[in-house]
Amino acid sequence: MGLNSNRVENFSDPEAPPPPPAIEATSVIQMPPVEVHRVCLPPLKTTAQKLRHRLSEIFFPDDPLHKFKDQSWLQKLVLGLQFFFPIFHWAPNYTLSLFKSDVVSGVTIASLAIPQGISYAKLANLPPIIGLYSSFVPPLIYSVLGSSRHLAVGPVSIASLVMGTMLSETVSYNDEPVLYLKLAFTATFFAGVFQASLGFLRLGFVIDFLSKATLVGFMAGAAVIVSLQQLKGLLGIVHFTTKMQLVPVLSSAFHQVDEWSWQTIVMGVGFLALLLITRLISIRKPKLFWVSAAAPLASVILSTILVVCFKSKLHGIKTIGNLPKGLNPPSSNMLYFDGPHLALAIKTGIITGILSLTEGIAVVRTFASLKNYQVDGNKEMVAIGLMNMAGSCSSCYVTTGSFSRSAVNYNAGAKTVVSNIVMAAAVLVTLLFLMPLFYYTPNLILAAIIITAVVGLIDYQAAYKLWKVDKLDFLACLCSFFGVLFISVPLGLAIAVGVSVFKILLHVTRPNTAVLGNIPRTQIYQNLTQYREAVRVPSFLIMAVEAPIYFANSTYLQERILRWIREEEEWLASNNRSNLKCVILDMTAVTAIDTSGIDTISELRKMLEKRSLKLVLANPVGSVMEKLHESHILESFGLEGLYLSVGEAIADISSAWKSQP
Amino acid sequence: MGLNSNRVENFSDPEAPPPPPAIEATSVIQMPPVEVHRVCLPPLKTTAQKLRHRLSEIFFPDDPLHKFKDQSWLQKLVLGLQFFFPIFHWAPNYTLSLFKSDVVSGVTIASLAIPQGISYAKLANLPPIIGLYSSFVPPLIYSVLGSSRHLAVGPVSIASLVMGTMLSETVSYNDEPVLYLKLAFTATFFAGVFQASLGFLRLGFVIDFLSKATLVGFMAGAAVIVSLQQLKGLLGIVHFTTKMQLVPVLSSAFHQVDEWSWQTIVMGVGFLALLLITRLISIRKPKLFWVSAAAPLASVILSTILVVCFKSKLHGIKTIGNLPKGLNPPSSNMLYFDGPHLALAIKTGIITGILSLTEGIAVVRTFASLKNYQVDGNKEMVAIGLMNMAGSCSSCYVTTGSFSRSAVNYNAGAKTVVSNIVMAAAVLVTLLFLMPLFYYTPNLILAAIIITAVVGLIDYQAAYKLWKVDKLDFLACLCSFFGVLFISVPLGLAIAVGVSVFKILLHVTRPNTAVLGNIPRTQIYQNLTQYREAVRVPSFLIMAVEAPIYFANSTYLQERILRWIREEEEWLASNNRSNLKCVILDMTAVTAIDTSGIDTISELRKMLEKRSLKLVLANPVGSVMEKLHESHILESFGLEGLYLSVGEAIADISSAWKSQP
Repeated sequence: MGLNSNRVENFSDPEAPPPPPAIEATSVIQMPPVEVHRVCLPPLKTTAQKLRHRLSEIFFPDDPLHKFKDQSWLQKLVLGLQFFFPIFHWAPNYTLSLFKSDVVSGVTIASLAIPQGISYAKLANLPPIIGLYSSFVPPLIYSVLGSSRHLAVGPVSIASLVMGTMLSETVSYNDEPVLYLKLAFTATFFAGVFQASLGFLRLGFVIDFLSKATLVGFMAGAAVIVSLQQLKGLLGIVHFTTKMQLVPVLSSAFHQVDEWSWQTIVMGVGFLALLLITRLISIRKPKLFWVSAAAPLASVILSTILVVCFKSKLHGIKTIGNLPKGLNPPSSNMLYFDGPHLALAIKTGIITGILSLTEGIAVVRTFASLKNYQVDGNKEMVAIGLMNMAGSCSSCYVTTGSFSRSAVNYNAGAKTVVSNIVMAAAVLVTLLFLMPLFYYTPNLILAAIIITAVVGLIDYQAAYKLWKVDKLDFLACLCSFFGVLFISVPLGLAIAVGVSVFKILLHVTRPNTAVLGNIPRTQIYQNLTQYREAVRVPSFLIMAVEAPIYFANSTYLQERILRWIREEEEWLASNNRSNLKCVILDMTAVTAIDTSGIDTISELRKMLEKRSLKLVLANPVGSVMEKLHESHILESFGLEGLYLSVGEAIADISSAWKSQP
Repeated sequence: MGLNSNRVENFSDPEAPPPPPAIEATSVIQMPPVEVHRVCLPPLKTTAQKLRHRLSEIFFPDDPLHKFKDQSWLQKLVLGLQFFFPIFHWAPNYTLSLFKSDVVSGVTIASLAIPQGISYAKLANLPPIIGLYSSFVPPLIYSVLGSSRHLAVGPVSIASLVMGTMLSETVSYNDEPVLYLKLAFTATFFAGVFQASLGFLRLGFVIDFLSKATLVGFMAGAAVIVSLQQLKGLLGIVHFTTKMQLVPVLSSAFHQVDEWSWQTIVMGVGFLALLLITRLISIRKPKLFWVSAAAPLASVILSTILVVCFKSKLHGIKTIGNLPKGLNPPSSNMLYFDGPHLALAIKTGIITGILSLTEGIAVVRTFASLKNYQVDGNKEMVAIGLMNMAGSCSSCYVTTGSFSRSAVNYNAGAKTVVSNIVMAAAVLVTLLFLMPLFYYTPNLILAAIIITAVVGLIDYQAAYKLWKVDKLDFLACLCSFFGVLFISVPLGLAIAVGVSVFKILLHVTRPNTAVLGNIPRTQIYQNLTQYREAVRVPSFLIMAVEAPIYFANSTYLQERILRWIREEEEWLASNNRSNLKCVILDMTAVTAIDTSGIDTISELRKMLEKRSLKLVLANPVGSVMEKLHESHILESFGLEGLYLSVGEAIADISSAWKSQP
C-alpha cells in the first residue's frame, strides 16, 4: 500500500515538472498485485482565478473575442468594426449575382410584409399605418447591425397580440388614442432597452428558460385566442370584447349575433379558405412557397377590387379607410417617462421584448445552422434591441425576425441582409404612393391573413413528441397552453416557466441512485437493472448517485443509500450469502457538492462505521475533489477511502482482505 | 461488426430468459479484435409504472411500510399501532433504570424550561404565563406521538421572535390584547395544520430548501436582533419600538436615554455576565453541562430574592407581576377563522410553522444519528403538527423541539420521551402552586436569559467554513443574515432561498465540460486538467458533460462543445498533428435529458457531419438511453454511434479505421 501514501496530490506550481506517473514507482519498489492510481486535485487556483474562470464561463462561453488574439492594432480596428457592424464584413465581397438573389427575395417578402404589417398592427389595436412604418425603419437598422443572412424583420403576431392585450386592459385605443400610441411606443422603447441590455450584459441565456415545451404550448394558446378574436372581423361584429381569455372572447362573438353581417361572413370565409388552401399547397410542395407568399397581397388586391366594384351592395363590409401618405413621422416626443402608466409600459415592454427576442433568436439560430454559419446570440440581441429603440423614435412598435417571412426569404433565395433593404424600399414606395389604394380594403381580409399566419403556430406534432418523450415537458406545454387560454399571457408564461424550473429542481431533489454490477471480463461497472449481464461483486455494494449532492437532496440521498444497504443486507441474509463488508459510492456523476452534501457524506461514513461497513468513494470529479479536500473530510476517510475507479477500489480492497484474513 | 447489429436491446418481457451475454456469441463466430458491449435499454415500463416508481421515489424514498410486508393481520395491527403511536413501541420494554435516568433529565430540562418559557413568551409579546402553558400540554402530546428519544419540547426563541414580529406589525398587544391572543392561537393552529399536512402528504423535503447556509445566516441575524431588542429589559426602557429591523431597534434604544434606569442596568449586566460565564464553562467542559442548565432558574430565584429584600431601594426595576394560578384554560373558542386578520394569521402560522419544523426536525435527526436510531422525518412532522394543533386549543403558542434544551436532555442522560412527561409534571406543579413566587421576578432577568440562549445561535465557525468551502453558500448565508437584519424575517428568508435555488439553476445552466485523456496502461479516461498523467488520444476529442442536458443549458452546451472542437483543431493545426476525426461525448454524468437536449445532440451530430467529424456517445445512463430511444434519434446515429465505454469506442473505431485505410 506504499503506493497510496500520497494519493491526494496538488499541482499548485504550474512550472513544476509533472510528478512521475504511478507506474514508475511500482517498478522501482516491487510490482504490487494491484495497480492503484491516485485521485488528483485539479490545479490549485486562487479565489480570484476561480471567480474569473466562472464568470468567463457564464458570460463568454463562446469566447467571442478569440479572433482578436495576436492581431496588430490595425487588424484589431478592422475586426472591431466588423464585429460591431457586420455590414463591413460582407459588403466588400458583395457581388451583382448576390444582389439579384436578394432583390427577388426582398420583393417576395415585401408582398407578404405589407398585408401582414397592416394586419398585425390591427392585432395590437394600433392604426394599420403603424404596421407599415414598422416594416420600414427596423429592417434598415437591422441590415447594418445584424449578422443573420435570412432574418426578415418586421412586426410579428405574438408580440403584437401581447402588446395589444396588455395595453388594452388599462387604456382603450378608441377612448384615448394618443395615450395608447404613447404607451405603445414607450413599451417598444423599453423592449429595445431590455433586449439590448440582455445582449450587452451577455445575459442572453435568460431566454433559454422559455423552453421549447413552454413555447409550443404558449404559441398554440395564443394562436387559438388570436384566431377566435378574428371572429370580430370575419363576422363583422362592431362591439367586441378587448379581453383575451377564451370565455369572454367566445361569449362576445355569440352574444352579438344581431351584429353579424352575412356579406362579411361569405367574403371572409371565402378568402380564408383560399389563403388556407395556398398555405397547404406550399406545405405539401415546398418549391411552390411563392404561392402562399403571394396569396395575401393577391387577396388584398382582389378583395379591394371586389369592394370597389360592388360598393353599393356590400355596404355591410367595414374597410380600412383613410391612411396617411408619407414616411414615418418622428415619435421620440411621444415617449412617456413619468405618469401613472409608466409601470404598465415597462411591464409590457419587458414581456413583448422577451417574447419577440425568443422568436428572433430562434429564427437566427435555425437558419444559421441550416446554412452552417456562426452567429453570436448576444450580438443579435443587441442588434434587435437597438432596432426597437430606433423604431420607438420613428413611429414603429415592437419588431423582430418573423419565422414565417424568414422562411419565405430563405426559400426565395436570400443571400444577405440586403433582402431586408429591398423590402424596406418596397414599403417606402407603398408609403409614399400607394396608400390611397388601401382605402377600400376590407377589414375581413386582415382577419383572414392573421388566422392563416397564426394557424402555423399550432404545432400539434411537437406536442405529441413531447408527450411521447417527456411527460413533464408535456405538462409544462399544457400549463402554458391553458394558462394563456384561460388566465392571461403573462401568468400562463410564468406558470410554464415555473413548471420547467420545478422539473430541474425535482431532478436535483430526487435524483436517481443505482446499484452497479461488474460486466464480466471487463473493468466496466454498470447499472444492474439496465444491464442484465452485469453481476454483483460479493461483499461489495456499489452505488452510483446520478446528481450533484446539494442541500436539497442530501437528506433524501442519505435515507435512500441506507435503504439500499438495508435491502441488500436483507437479500444477502435470506439467500445465505456472505456478509456485506464494503460500500463503494461511484461519484462520477456527482458533478458538484455543497456544504450540506459534504456533511452527509461524512455522516454516512460514521453511520456505516458503527455497523462495521467500510465506505469508499470512487472517481470524484475535479470540483467535488476540491471541496472534499477543502473541508478536510478526506482526512477522516484515510488513505484507503478514495479510488480512481470502482475497479481499482475492488481490486485493492479485496487484495487487502486476502492478505489479512 | 456483426456483434453490434443488435446493440440497442429491449428487455420488454420480464419472463423471457436473459439474452446470451455478448461473450458467448464471439466465441462461436470468431474472436474479433475488439470486444464491444451493447448499450442496453432499461427494462421497458408503461407510463403508469414509471409514474408509480417516480411517485414512490418522491414520497416514500425510505419505504416506511417495509416492516408491514409479509406479516399476518394481527402483527400488522400491532405494527400499525406502534407506527402511529410510538409509545406502544417502547412502553412494553420500559424499566425502572430507564425511568431513573428520565427523571433526572426531566427535572434538569424543567429547570431550564420554566424560565425560558416565560422569557420566550415575552419575546413573542405574549403574557409570560402562555410560555408556561406551552411547556405543559405539547410535551405530553409529543410523548405519545413522537419517536425521538431526546427531543425536549417547548417554546423556542426563533419561532417566538418571528411570531411576535409578524403579529405586532399589525396588532399591538398593549392596545388589543384579546385580538392579539386570538391571532397567536390561530397562527399556532395553522402552523400545526401546515406541519401535519407536510408530514402527512410526505412533502417533508420542502424544509430541505432551507439549506444549512441559509439557516446559519438567518439564525445569526435573528440572534443579533433579539439580543438588541433585549436592551429594553436590560436598560429598563418603557417606550420601545415594536419593529424588528436593526435601525429602528438601535435608534429606539439610544433615543430613550432618559428612561434608562441605573439599578436595572447594574443588576441586568451582572446577571447577564453570570449566565454567559456559566455558558462558557459548560462549553469548555461538557461534563459540567448542569452548570449552564441550572443557571437560569438559579438566577431567577436569586434576582427575585434580591428584589424582595431591597424592594424600597430598587423601585426602578420592573417585575413580572401577577400570574394566574391554575392549568391551561381551553382556547378553542379563541380561534379566529374569519375577519380582516385571517390572512395575517395564516401567513404567520406558515412561516413560524416552517421555521419551528426545521429546528425540530434538525434536532430529531442530530440525536438520532448520534445514538444511531432511525426516525421518520415525515412522521415526526405529523407529531409536531398535531401537538401544535392541540396546543392552539389549550392556550399554547407555537412549540417545537428546542436545540439547547434537547442537548441538555441528552447530556443529562435522557433515555426516552418520558423525560418530557417528567418535565411537564414539574411545570404542572409550578402552574398549580408556585405562580405567586414569580411576582417579584424582574424583567431584566428574562432579557438576560434570552440573550444567553440566542448567543449560541451565532455560529461564526460554520460561516467561516462556508466561506472556505463554498463561496455561493456563503453568499446565501450573508443574504439571509443581512436580509433579516435590515429588511424583514420573511423577505430575508425568501432572498436566501432564492440564492440557494439560483445556485442549483446556475449549475444546470452553465455546467462543467471537460476534455478527457487516457491514463496510460488503463482503460480509464480522465479530465486532462485534473490528471497530468492523462494523455490525449490522437484523432479523437473525448469530452465529458457534467450535467443533465436541459432546455436551460442546451444552447450553452452546443456553443461550448463547438468551441472545444475549434480550439482543439487550432491547437492540432499549429502543432502539425494529425487531424481530428472523431468526437466522443462521455455521457456518464449526463443524468437526464429533455426534448431540447435531444434536439441539441441531434443538431450537433449534423453540424459535425458537415465538417466530416464523427460524433459518438459513450455510456448513456438508463433514463437518457430511454429518451434517446423514444425520440428515434438513435436511428440517425446508426449502429456505430453508441458505445458502452470510451475505451471500447476508441478501440472499435480505431480498428475500423485500420481495416479501411
